[in-house]
Amino acid sequence: MNVTVGRRTRHYRTVAFDARQNAVRLIDQRLLPHIFQIVATRNFQETARAIHEMTVRGAGAIGATAAYGLAQGVQAFRGGNLGKFSRHVDAVYQTLRAARPTAVDPVNAMNDVRSRMSQGKTVEEQQALALTAAEDFANDDVRHCEAIGRQGGPLIQDGMRILTHCNAGWLAFVDVGTATAPLYAAQAEGRKFHVFCDETRPRSQGATLTAWELAQQGIAHEVVADSAAGHLIQRGEIDLVIVGSDRTLGRTGEVANKIGTYTKAVLAERHNIPFYVAIPLSTIDWELFSGRDIPIEERDENEVLGAWGAVASSKPPASGARFGRRAYVRVANPTSGARNPGFDVTPAELITGIITPAGIFKPKELWANRLKLGYRE
Amino acid sequence: MNVTVGRRTRHYRTVAFDARQNAVRLIDQRLLPHIFQIVATRNFQETARAIHEMTVRGAGAIGATAAYGLAQGVQAFRGGNLGKFSRHVDAVYQTLRAARPTAVDPVNAMNDVRSRMSQGKTVEEQQALALTAAEDFANDDVRHCEAIGRQGGPLIQDGMRILTHCNAGWLAFVDVGTATAPLYAAQAEGRKFHVFCDETRPRSQGATLTAWELAQQGIAHEVVADSAAGHLIQRGEIDLVIVGSDRTLGRTGEVANKIGTYTKAVLAERHNIPFYVAIPLSTIDWELFSGRDIPIEERDENEVLGAWGAVASSKPPASGARFGRRAYVRVANPTSGARNPGFDVTPAELITGIITPAGIFKPKELWANRLKLGYRE
Repeated sequence: MNVTVGRRTRHYRTVAFDARQNAVRLIDQRLLPHIFQIVATRNFQETARAIHEMTVRGAGAIGATAAYGLAQGVQAFRGGNLGKFSRHVDAVYQTLRAARPTAVDPVNAMNDVRSRMSQGKTVEEQQALALTAAEDFANDDVRHCEAIGRQGGPLIQDGMRILTHCNAGWLAFVDVGTATAPLYAAQAEGRKFHVFCDETRPRSQGATLTAWELAQQGIAHEVVADSAAGHLIQRGEIDLVIVGSDRTLGRTGEVANKIGTYTKAVLAERHNIPFYVAIPLSTIDWELFSGRDIPIEERDENEVLGAWGAVASSKPPASGARFGRRAYVRVANPTSGARNPGFDVTPAELITGIITPAGIFKPKELWANRLKLGYRE
Repeated sequence: MNVTVGRRTRHYRTVAFDARQNAVRLIDQRLLPHIFQIVATRNFQETARAIHEMTVRGAGAIGATAAYGLAQGVQAFRGGNLGKFSRHVDAVYQTLRAARPTAVDPVNAMNDVRSRMSQGKTVEEQQALALTAAEDFANDDVRHCEAIGRQGGPLIQDGMRILTHCNAGWLAFVDVGTATAPLYAAQAEGRKFHVFCDETRPRSQGATLTAWELAQQGIAHEVVADSAAGHLIQRGEIDLVIVGSDRTLGRTGEVANKIGTYTKAVLAERHNIPFYVAIPLSTIDWELFSGRDIPIEERDENEVLGAWGAVASSKPPASGARFGRRAYVRVANPTSGARNPGFDVTPAELITGIITPAGIFKPKELWANRLKLGYRE
């Protein structure tokens, strides 16, 4: 999507490949929203480190980064010995895989690249195929998100006030995003609307990443504390809720997503507001029979006990305050601990529709439509 | 309640009067939870400033502070001229009233003191009466909170897991608190339970003040992000919710309280968990006929866009990290704005019971019991 730095507006992808330099170019998401900076990793080890250190995050984005990182590592091989080459590819694969061991997207993406490579007869052919496969993977990610936008865009009508939670935006993918795709599609068709970004404590991805994205795209928006949505919905100030998904159960229609999603779904149902989930097909889990079997990651309590931000130059933060270096502040009582579940599960009956690249489905209709949705026996 | 500094545990009130020094002694709540410090105001102007600058906050606490501040100002008068004395009392009253112009508690408290003073015939008699009246006001605040504890304590059973929101604890009153009173009462009877403190963004009173209070009292507790309660309730990890109230409509049973309270009530109802509100009688509004008529204060957006805390000495916050000076960090995207409603309104049908010093009532039964609850025609 577009980013304006100074007076210059340019299109960027979250992840891109510079074939001339054999470098993966990433938006450094650890510096956002305060600093926009592109980093170029010079070798696959640096790419693995960028995944590990969360320079890049988000399912689609780390998938594409791993695909590019594999191609990058493959390009660096010198010589024609296929046995040595194969051992080198394995080492690159394992290094990138170990960078985020619990994530499934990098593995799927790299398996895709390796399977395409295997059709090459020589080292040189395989190197070329790896690069094409990685580019195709990234382009497919963008196309899927654009398709979500085409499917979901018509839901976003002129004058609507939309609530979103966390960041399922273009920064989490290669471009466009999932929950944001219908917004960008509606904007492209000239419709005006207002987005409330849930702050999304404890990591505040709504206040930092989604708000930054929407500001860059010129979409009217405001940040709200996670607790404020109930009041806004109760007073009739929200017309539609749209969120992303970390895992969607194809058999039951249950959605695991960032902690707080379930609460928004409960509030939306109580006040008869549509609640949509936008997903790429890769998040559908066709195996599990119950959302209770989804493991809920318990994260570091320091996330809840404090906050990361840019230190204000003056206090209280006046309109002229400048924001300097990033720092962690301990907000909570220093002798208290915290619980920090990272995700929650929203049952099918609270979800109005699931927006996929292949259409909008009722959650309980995913299974019946599984062949359209990428299910393989 | 008890506070431990170093190895010494002592009982403190949030607000107390030092008659020998003619000083109001306050726990400086702006420094909590990182620093515990008592400030002594030397004259009524300093007391007014302490109210204005939120050294002291919370309905009962600022009421008692204003009562003591009036007595303090009255003591400082020299001479026996009743006309001059009366003008002096007026000036003190107006100064303290202007310190927090929208709050009703300081006004009610000072009216109480003035009405008692008026029974004195001489300046000296009136000065003595003012001091007694202020002490009585503070002691009544404590007695009412203790009565809430006696009424609500039996609700807190051994092994329960309790969710609370914001701070309606002893720091908001002279001692004991309202939402915390049943917890302290249950603890005094030897029962063990676990409290989840909602962080309560944007001002984080749950993570800072309630967590600090419970830690000082040795009650097992953990801080949770406001968004986490839905998940915990859904998984059966919370047995009871208890909150305070900023305004309770005597005619309808609706409760205005810190933003996010309504959401917790909706979640509790969905999962059949009791939801209690603990109130002193002074928060009952017998006038309004609908919660929609309660004005909802829209607060400074900087509260939502950032956070106050103690800067960590090292990053990421390791177990050995030390926390130094307090600072405001800007968390959100710097070019985004925020909505910041400070309160929300919970309808009567979501409230299991309202715990008052005079008993526990169904919200819709307040009106029928109005004579017990301090209503005057």
